[in-house]
Amino acid sequence: MSANETAKKWVYLFREAVEPMRSLLGSKGAGLAEMARAGLPVPPGFTITTEACTAYYARGEQFPPGMWEQALGALGDVERETGKGFGDPRQPLLVSVRSGAVVSMPGMMDTVLNVGLNEQTLQGLARGAGGTPFAYDAYRRFIQMFGRVVLGVPGEAFEATLEATRREARTAKAGGLGAEQEVEAARRLLAVVREQAGREFPEDPHEQLRLAIQAVMASWNGRRARDYRAFHRIPDTLGTAVSVVAMVFGNMDERSGTGVAFTRDPSTGARTLYGEYLANAQGEDVVAGVRTPQKISQLAQAMPEVYRQVEEIAGKLEAFYRDAQDLEFTVERGKLYMLQTRSAKRTAAAAVKIAVDMVKEGVLSKDEALLRVEPVQVNQLLLPRFDERAKETASTRGDLLARGLNASPGAASGKAVLDPDLAAQLGGRGESVILVRAETNPDDVHGMLKAKGVLTARGGATSHAAVVARGLGKPCVAGCEALHVDLERRQCVVDGRVVREMEEISIDGTTGEVFVGRLPTIEPNFGEERELITLLGWADEARRLGVWANADYPRDAQRALEFGAEGIGLCRTEHMFFEEERLPIVRHMILAAGEAAALEDELRRLEGELPKALGEQRAALSQRLAAQRARVESSPQVKRYHEALDRLLAFQVQDFKGILRAMTGKPVIIRLLDPPLHEFLPRYEDLLVEVTQLRLGGGDPREIPEKEQLLRAVEAMREANPMLGLRGCRLGLLYGAINQMQGRAIFTAACELAKEGWDPRPEVMVPLVAHVSELRLVRQELEGVAEEVQREQGMRIAYKIGTMIELPRAALTADEIAQEAEFFSFGTNDLTQTTYGISRDDAEGKFLLQYVQRGILPDNPFQVLDRQGVGSLIKTAVELGRKTRPDLEVGICGEHGGDPSSIEFCHQAGLNYVSASPFRVPVARLAAAHAAVKEKKAAVGLPVPERRRGVAGRTQRTKRRNS
Amino acid sequence: MSANETAKKWVYLFREAVEPMRSLLGSKGAGLAEMARAGLPVPPGFTITTEACTAYYARGEQFPPGMWEQALGALGDVERETGKGFGDPRQPLLVSVRSGAVVSMPGMMDTVLNVGLNEQTLQGLARGAGGTPFAYDAYRRFIQMFGRVVLGVPGEAFEATLEATRREARTAKAGGLGAEQEVEAARRLLAVVREQAGREFPEDPHEQLRLAIQAVMASWNGRRARDYRAFHRIPDTLGTAVSVVAMVFGNMDERSGTGVAFTRDPSTGARTLYGEYLANAQGEDVVAGVRTPQKISQLAQAMPEVYRQVEEIAGKLEAFYRDAQDLEFTVERGKLYMLQTRSAKRTAAAAVKIAVDMVKEGVLSKDEALLRVEPVQVNQLLLPRFDERAKETASTRGDLLARGLNASPGAASGKAVLDPDLAAQLGGRGESVILVRAETNPDDVHGMLKAKGVLTARGGATSHAAVVARGLGKPCVAGCEALHVDLERRQCVVDGRVVREMEEISIDGTTGEVFVGRLPTIEPNFGEERELITLLGWADEARRLGVWANADYPRDAQRALEFGAEGIGLCRTEHMFFEEERLPIVRHMILAAGEAAALEDELRRLEGELPKALGEQRAALSQRLAAQRARVESSPQVKRYHEALDRLLAFQVQDFKGILRAMTGKPVIIRLLDPPLHEFLPRYEDLLVEVTQLRLGGGDPREIPEKEQLLRAVEAMREANPMLGLRGCRLGLLYGAINQMQGRAIFTAACELAKEGWDPRPEVMVPLVAHVSELRLVRQELEGVAEEVQREQGMRIAYKIGTMIELPRAALTADEIAQEAEFFSFGTNDLTQTTYGISRDDAEGKFLLQYVQRGILPDNPFQVLDRQGVGSLIKTAVELGRKTRPDLEVGICGEHGGDPSSIEFCHQAGLNYVSASPFRVPVARLAAAHAAVKEKKAAVGLPVPERRRGVAGRTQRTKRRNS
Repeated sequence: MSANETAKKWVYLFREAVEPMRSLLGSKGAGLAEMARAGLPVPPGFTITTEACTAYYARGEQFPPGMWEQALGALGDVERETGKGFGDPRQPLLVSVRSGAVVSMPGMMDTVLNVGLNEQTLQGLARGAGGTPFAYDAYRRFIQMFGRVVLGVPGEAFEATLEATRREARTAKAGGLGAEQEVEAARRLLAVVREQAGREFPEDPHEQLRLAIQAVMASWNGRRARDYRAFHRIPDTLGTAVSVVAMVFGNMDERSGTGVAFTRDPSTGARTLYGEYLANAQGEDVVAGVRTPQKISQLAQAMPEVYRQVEEIAGKLEAFYRDAQDLEFTVERGKLYMLQTRSAKRTAAAAVKIAVDMVKEGVLSKDEALLRVEPVQVNQLLLPRFDERAKETASTRGDLLARGLNASPGAASGKAVLDPDLAAQLGGRGESVILVRAETNPDDVHGMLKAKGVLTARGGATSHAAVVARGLGKPCVAGCEALHVDLERRQCVVDGRVVREMEEISIDGTTGEVFVGRLPTIEPNFGEERELITLLGWADEARRLGVWANADYPRDAQRALEFGAEGIGLCRTEHMFFEEERLPIVRHMILAAGEAAALEDELRRLEGELPKALGEQRAALSQRLAAQRARVESSPQVKRYHEALDRLLAFQVQDFKGILRAMTGKPVIIRLLDPPLHEFLPRYEDLLVEVTQLRLGGGDPREIPEKEQLLRAVEAMREANPMLGLRGCRLGLLYGAINQMQGRAIFTAACELAKEGWDPRPEVMVPLVAHVSELRLVRQELEGVAEEVQREQGMRIAYKIGTMIELPRAALTADEIAQEAEFFSFGTNDLTQTTYGISRDDAEGKFLLQYVQRGILPDNPFQVLDRQGVGSLIKTAVELGRKTRPDLEVGICGEHGGDPSSIEFCHQAGLNYVSASPFRVPVARLAAAHAAVKEKKAAVGLPVPERRRGVAGRTQRTKRRNS
Repeated sequence: MSANETAKKWVYLFREAVEPMRSLLGSKGAGLAEMARAGLPVPPGFTITTEACTAYYARGEQFPPGMWEQALGALGDVERETGKGFGDPRQPLLVSVRSGAVVSMPGMMDTVLNVGLNEQTLQGLARGAGGTPFAYDAYRRFIQMFGRVVLGVPGEAFEATLEATRREARTAKAGGLGAEQEVEAARRLLAVVREQAGREFPEDPHEQLRLAIQAVMASWNGRRARDYRAFHRIPDTLGTAVSVVAMVFGNMDERSGTGVAFTRDPSTGARTLYGEYLANAQGEDVVAGVRTPQKISQLAQAMPEVYRQVEEIAGKLEAFYRDAQDLEFTVERGKLYMLQTRSAKRTAAAAVKIAVDMVKEGVLSKDEALLRVEPVQVNQLLLPRFDERAKETASTRGDLLARGLNASPGAASGKAVLDPDLAAQLGGRGESVILVRAETNPDDVHGMLKAKGVLTARGGATSHAAVVARGLGKPCVAGCEALHVDLERRQCVVDGRVVREMEEISIDGTTGEVFVGRLPTIEPNFGEERELITLLGWADEARRLGVWANADYPRDAQRALEFGAEGIGLCRTEHMFFEEERLPIVRHMILAAGEAAALEDELRRLEGELPKALGEQRAALSQRLAAQRARVESSPQVKRYHEALDRLLAFQVQDFKGILRAMTGKPVIIRLLDPPLHEFLPRYEDLLVEVTQLRLGGGDPREIPEKEQLLRAVEAMREANPMLGLRGCRLGLLYGAINQMQGRAIFTAACELAKEGWDPRPEVMVPLVAHVSELRLVRQELEGVAEEVQREQGMRIAYKIGTMIELPRAALTADEIAQEAEFFSFGTNDLTQTTYGISRDDAEGKFLLQYVQRGILPDNPFQVLDRQGVGSLIKTAVELGRKTRPDLEVGICGEHGGDPSSIEFCHQAGLNYVSASPFRVPVARLAAAHAAVKEKKAAVGLPVPERRRGVAGRTQRTKRRNS
């Protein structure tokens, strides 16, 4: 025990907390203290600090020395202020013991109310304003809550006992017991505790308080809380504060009640007091769903003065915190008590509107407003979502079936299907299907692929279902624990409500809600999102990083432009090769390429030799050269090869004209052919089966020779590890004619457009460079083609040649590579694969998922850029590259270009731009602005908000089922 | 033109060169100058510097200003010294114009003799001591040589003309023409020049000289010379010097002659004058093979005084150069002239013996002696080789068929087979076969695999045949251009000599020789290589780097020990899994592993939950836990899994006891299972064909269900890129029981051995770590097992746990990884694959070969460590790792551990040891010593020999066909 600890202040009265002490008091404690300080009506109480919680764990779950004594001292203060005594049978003081971490973790930790009640104090309470029924109600609630939370008694045990008691009393109405029956009921609940917990219910109020504080501290380490923190990257070491608050009662009479209020509408962001009120009730009644609250406007009619007071306080608090607040209050016999204030959770739409409005109201600066909207929320706004009104109606109708984790955003409706095979089958037929599973595993993926969305009963935000759905961009509600999937009866059940397979359901992956029936969805229209457009305009002013888009076709480029893209960072040419009318030509080209290239290479080699040869050598060489020329000229392979390439050239010129025209005046990075050529051929396994069948007489035997030949060709091109094989620039180096064709198409397209008055800005990107020599050779070839085309066309155009940095060696030798490259574009997908030695195709559904679930890796490195490994290579490459070429244009075109955390890194690493898929361009604009604003704030020493998980946004799990 | 150039000294008389000026004068020029300075009899002459050659190229093949004038001045000096005049018809001075680079490039460049002859000076020569026949002979030789080398006339044109002239004169004997016929012959030769070169033969001696100098300079850039330099890493910018030497004639009379002498026997290294002499002849006669020289001892009888003089000069030169010399001399009418001295080429055996002897003779220090032997030569000594005496006898018998490039060392005899299919077939039957091809390509590899050696007519040291043969460790003679492979007649022909397919031939890949017939081979016996053992003992004293070996079995470990290994750097355990009796057990284990691991994981997860659960959660959890326990206990998969693992455990304990016992007292690094599990299962494609056949009725239909099940299992485990898939530590993290079994086997083996009195030193190596968490988890598991085993066995043992660094991310985060690792071992094979993004399996026979041939990469990075990319990761990892753990043990266990250049890098990077295959341990010992000695020399400012290509050693191509 250190002297430090003994001397430490572990406990603060609300009115003692003289400055913002959120990290010590937690968000709830700080809120109460701040309200108390502002003179708002707050019940007296005190907060035990988060440090005490940390010390409690450090000492093997023992209170640190002095803490208990300080708590008792503060309790005395509360007694004095309230004029009541803790354990005093005449004027008993009751308290609530509430958890409250620095970072909000709604519903994740425990709270105990009515601490201080026993058979003696019960009598004192009964003598007070509420009378006996109120007192017994409070006592019964206390035994149950304390029993459950502190002593670990299953809630059902209490329910069963109460049920029996009520049945005996022939009344099933809550609170409807007579006095004797109340006594009997309490006695029986205490017996349940004795039986289930193996101990007597503690009578001593101080022991109750001690145990309650311990239980709240323990709930910091409950599984849910830990999972929640793991997902939200909240350190386990923060600990929770514990607030002990004098009880006030909303259930004393009809002039009492409990309510919540949002200072703005959390769905739309409209500036209006929004909330609910329930007369003669305690907050937990609302939570338990026993009674349905009314709109807060009812309060205005019932107690206009109290309503006015709430309105006034709401205004004060919003002004104080400069953000929309979520308030909890209780009215005890006409007197208002504020119990909590915190930043209001809000929908993406509300977040944007509030932020923009508050700038217009002069409350926030633009920079502050930008930070109030999480980039992922922008993404949510651009996904299909349910009509809020329809959701409300459905909820009122009772069609809100359950809530789970909002594991992957977006909304979807369809038939509930309980197995992946059926889902694949129906989905394949074009039916809308929601795959509903207890949990998913890799065998379910074919069903997930064809489903509109996924709903699971178990598993967190990093479960298989969640990870795969996010990867597929499909909505997913996971860990919906109320849901029981009954495969035998082909149905699922929530609290007794049955949904049969093939009935329609709707899931909202952005909020975690599950509805029965089909809800109308709204397809977002970016152009109409006026506030978002305003906010993104401010983002554009704030950010330093450019935002480009990955687009392969003119239509994608067009969409990207609408979303605000400033260039195309990656136009892949392979998709163009896969188009139906072209694939046969591509296959002809590939099957002829090997032999043709070998023949032509030999010819070029000999031609290169000739000038250097002397004497006899020269004569022999001339002979060989002539022979070789004859072979090349007469080769059907060579002929077929060039014919196919010529036909592809015509197509490619049109491809490139399309995209360069759409992006006139803006850079378009076109990547040369990248994938291994065998990807364009039939699958080896399919051919193998076909040939085996043909040989055994299954089919036309005349097909055998051709199929066998194709099989041999495909076999010769197979690779053990195609990801590391003959692809990228290696292709162009072996089959120079392909590069020449693509180069010719790009430069021809640009020249033709320029003649038509457009402003094409092509940048040719050479993929998979490991050594500068590779780039040098390709570059020389391209420059030659460019010269030739420009001469033919009689037109000069501006173009750049650069490379992807997607192999560690390229990053490590970026100084050399920059000698040949006018731009770098980080291909972080492949760079992550090679740096980690992980094949994404093989790993992502398999061991990588386990790695993330077990915490071996903090994130899936294909979703969130690995700053330490891959990031260090990026920094090295930027530094080395700029050393050689200070004006080097550097960007990122991997999928990380659309992930906010990765974008922040790109900003810090000094990249010029990020390139993301068109739909993620708005996200990227905001994320880039966040990075810039945070940097600015850090530079002047302001606190910077914590970095949050970028993929799925915050998980919401509110206490109120029917809010 | 810079003033500098004009003022520059381009030309040095032999006697002017006052200090070693090898880089300016070339090796030949420096040798002549040094001999002249030592007062040895050297014909007068001068050397044009290498700088002049470089300037010549820089100026577009123009002599630099002043050079020609300086040459003429020097020529005047030679005239004065010889008393003859250049172009003087009375006393004509003739000169030879000789190439000579700094680094010896034997036979790669051109030389012109007898420059200065024309119809006038011919008369003067005829009046001299040699008389008319001699003068005409010289004139004829001059026209041919000048015509061929300078004017590019094919040699055959001259031959045909001479042949015709002789036929007309009815004499076929060389030099047997009458005076008139000689005149006619010369006339006709001049006509050939006119016709073929399209110009008159230059009559003006000065023009002859100018053109000859240009031709010699041009030969620096001939194809052969460039290829040779590319292969030997000689910079193209060095340029050649040109020596102009007064002609002396060995063909004047019987008291004249020409000879070569080695100061020690270049085959054996014995200290005796060794060489050849040919009376009344010029050096080129020997080269042309027109006449056969005699042993030099003949000279002792013919002209004892001259012989004594040669002996004396040989002794002086060896003492001066402190190395065995290769001398060329000419005797003109009893007077000895030294024409060249240079370091003698020698066999590996001779190199070792000379180095060791010279230390004993007090000539060299041990360090110097070490540098006199190339590490690859040690390798050659340990490969099968032909008996030198048998080779000599075969040569005398005329069985030396041809010479090619020594592309891959070692010796082999067998039937010459001209196509790869036949080679594969015969070789597969156990017959000794030499594959003989014009050139090889990837389609030939199956034949190369089964052949004892490979012989090709075309292609250099980086040709497909050479690269693949070196990779396979088989002897190869490549680019044997005299060889004509006639596939139609199934035979090959060398200068008209026919070898039919299936006749026996012998190839010496160390020297490039090809013999007909079967030569007896000597299997090396390391224990008997006394001089080598002495030299390696000195190497051990000099080196700082430890030399360990890669060995999977006790017998390999034993061999490694004999070769001097100080530990086992890599014991792979997967080979043990492949053994015949074990493979079925391994397959059982694998097929059960997936489900069993999933069941057990879930059980462990639930067990871990229980202590943290409260209330209802706890009850529900207990239920699930009990159910899960029942599932695990009743699962046949789990049972099968553990039964198989138990059986493997018993085998593995014996495996590890064997190797730890063999290496008692020395470290043994055992790597945990590394390859993807599907490698142990039948091939997917084979199963697919089998099942397809079964389904179509080909076979017993009852087999279908089982085969289909196996097919599904194998299909589920297939990977797109297995190299980057579920392997290495990822296996152990998913299937913990495998790691536990291997750990248990290692620690049990060690404990049992320790009880028996041995000193086992196991080090457990965790493969494919990318993130420190992976290593941490595996380490914790292993430590748990180690504790358990030691407790059970009642024995403590010392052990280490460490990791391979084989992924870029591991290298980049080595500081973190070192927290959990007591040692690092660089797996440079995989590190090269991931850093370069190249799959070795796919690339090496395909595009990588082209890359090296076209100079895109300087080397195959799997053979010679890529210092820039992979090397920089290694340096980073060593630095970061030692920062965390200063006593970190760092080594390399990739194949680079046996490559001299890579070993030098490992020394420089501060590694503790290299680990190579047992046979390369001696090479590594010497290479490590080289690195240390060079470092020592560099530290005191001494010149360090150039780094040479490590793989194939120097290419030899001597001028003499029958030496």
